[in-house]
Amino acid sequence: MKGFLVRPAQALLMIWLVSLSMLSQAASDPLPSWKEGPSKKAIIEFVTQVTKPGAATFVPEPERIATFDNDGTLWAEQPVYFQGLFAVERVRALADKNPDWRKAEPYKSAIEGDMKGVMASGMEGLEKLLVASHANVEAEVFAQAVSDWLATARHPTTGKHYTQMVYQPMLELLDYLRANGFKTFIVSGGGIDFIRVFAEQSYGIPPEQVVGTTLGARFDMKDGVPTIVKEPKLVLMDDKVGKPVGIYQYIGRRPIMAVGNSDGDMQMLQYTTIARSEADKTPRLGVIVHHTDAEREWAYDRTSHIGKLDKAMDESKQRGWLLVDMKKEWSQVFPE
Amino acid sequence: MKGFLVRPAQALLMIWLVSLSMLSQAASDPLPSWKEGPSKKAIIEFVTQVTKPGAATFVPEPERIATFDNDGTLWAEQPVYFQGLFAVERVRALADKNPDWRKAEPYKSAIEGDMKGVMASGMEGLEKLLVASHANVEAEVFAQAVSDWLATARHPTTGKHYTQMVYQPMLELLDYLRANGFKTFIVSGGGIDFIRVFAEQSYGIPPEQVVGTTLGARFDMKDGVPTIVKEPKLVLMDDKVGKPVGIYQYIGRRPIMAVGNSDGDMQMLQYTTIARSEADKTPRLGVIVHHTDAEREWAYDRTSHIGKLDKAMDESKQRGWLLVDMKKEWSQVFPE
Repeated sequence: MKGFLVRPAQALLMIWLVSLSMLSQAASDPLPSWKEGPSKKAIIEFVTQVTKPGAATFVPEPERIATFDNDGTLWAEQPVYFQGLFAVERVRALADKNPDWRKAEPYKSAIEGDMKGVMASGMEGLEKLLVASHANVEAEVFAQAVSDWLATARHPTTGKHYTQMVYQPMLELLDYLRANGFKTFIVSGGGIDFIRVFAEQSYGIPPEQVVGTTLGARFDMKDGVPTIVKEPKLVLMDDKVGKPVGIYQYIGRRPIMAVGNSDGDMQMLQYTTIARSEADKTPRLGVIVHHTDAEREWAYDRTSHIGKLDKAMDESKQRGWLLVDMKKEWSQVFPE
Repeated sequence: MKGFLVRPAQALLMIWLVSLSMLSQAASDPLPSWKEGPSKKAIIEFVTQVTKPGAATFVPEPERIATFDNDGTLWAEQPVYFQGLFAVERVRALADKNPDWRKAEPYKSAIEGDMKGVMASGMEGLEKLLVASHANVEAEVFAQAVSDWLATARHPTTGKHYTQMVYQPMLELLDYLRANGFKTFIVSGGGIDFIRVFAEQSYGIPPEQVVGTTLGARFDMKDGVPTIVKEPKLVLMDDKVGKPVGIYQYIGRRPIMAVGNSDGDMQMLQYTTIARSEADKTPRLGVIVHHTDAEREWAYDRTSHIGKLDKAMDESKQRGWLLVDMKKEWSQVFPE
């Protein structure tokens, strides 16, 4: 009887141990949506290096700063920056209060939902739409408008909510870095106030760790209530050479890791990865998401009107930046 | 024999228990340099309220933002802002490279160490000195200059290093808040790049949590090295109405606690403590350090040329802001 009891107990124990080992294997993969490949390997090696106590490559926690571009890096950006779609929607919503808009471009096209007309107005037209939709408004009112839009609007081709179009592998990467003592920041050409509305919930990145293109603001006492009003004045264009400036101004120290996807991120990657002196042996990692997946997402690079990746792709070889092949290296693109 | 052994054991146990209770009492006072009084009581009540799970007054950790002015709040500011003394020193150090300065005010007075001459040049002269000492310089070179100065310079009357003139009660308050899930920020009229050099070591506040008056900057590739160069252009004047703007721009959410010492902090305290609607019952705390201690520090308020506290003192009653009487409420001013 005793022997009979021991055998099933041993069998159960073995099954339990095997399950535990499988579980632990799954739990020990911090990046399950990243296929085994050069990018995953290099990222894990980098994190291992900087977190190894006593190693020459060790970086103290406060200096483990990682910066992420947003459009095309943390969420999708095709067929047009999502913030641009919000701007058009908001101009339409504000049309009744601004009767002049119906007579002048680019407002007219925006109100009529004519995206071709909007695009035809060029950068100048887009700037006018941005000011019309993002300035001369109380900060809280603007944030509420973004929040309402995100809750209802859907992407023109996927039909998803925009916050469902964040990249699952990037959510895992952000978590993995934070679990290893990194502080994660967004450094985006997009509007700082737009991104702050959803960054905490979508990415676990609080408002104070979002850097982006910034409009001026003023303080007003309005009926006894302290109020911030957004002004139609550009304070920081957080793109290209503006990204290192934004990092310097908002964060105040150089990142050791930067992740982007376009030429707009090149200077941020340079600033992050090129040591100031040969004596500086701090490990530094540059990562570029290469959009190669026309089926699950979009495929574009050198000639794209959005997220053009040309010079930075050439420079990636010289600098040793990772070029993440989305199609080959990501087993999943969006969260389920 | 048994009874004999038990009695000393009981006695030892009692001594041990009493010691433990004394230790625990000491350990349980998070603000030992704050005397029992209205300010200490109100601060502890506030922190208890916002950290009590399930209470109507509970505030989730990410929203526990506390902002501190620097000059006169975290460290001393008499007889003149320490950063001003640095600016004068730096102009003197750069004089040989700028021969024109010897012929023109306010540079001439600064080089000659004539502080009266410097002050006579007024705000316009001070701004010129700030630009001369803080701009047209690489970010790292500037930070090193501040660091070198802090390591050697001594206060004209106390003979202390400037970083020894931080307030012990404030160091305790910062620690106490952080231990209770607060994120602590500096929001200062002083230069952001100046404060960032010592804030982490002196206050435990990392560079990315320092907001201050900000000059422009540009990105340059210099001999293949990415370089930030500070420019002679004011981007944010982080004083008075500029403080809520700085908070909005850099932090992106309203603090629930703000600490200052002068009229320059009034709008920050308004922005922090006045609810936007009657429905908002979030506890909010405004604190003003009142310099009342001519013996251990300085005594000044309504008519001071530095750190003038006049309107904000009047408003403190109406708003329920704490007015901390340094002389009466602080058992220690500077660290030993």
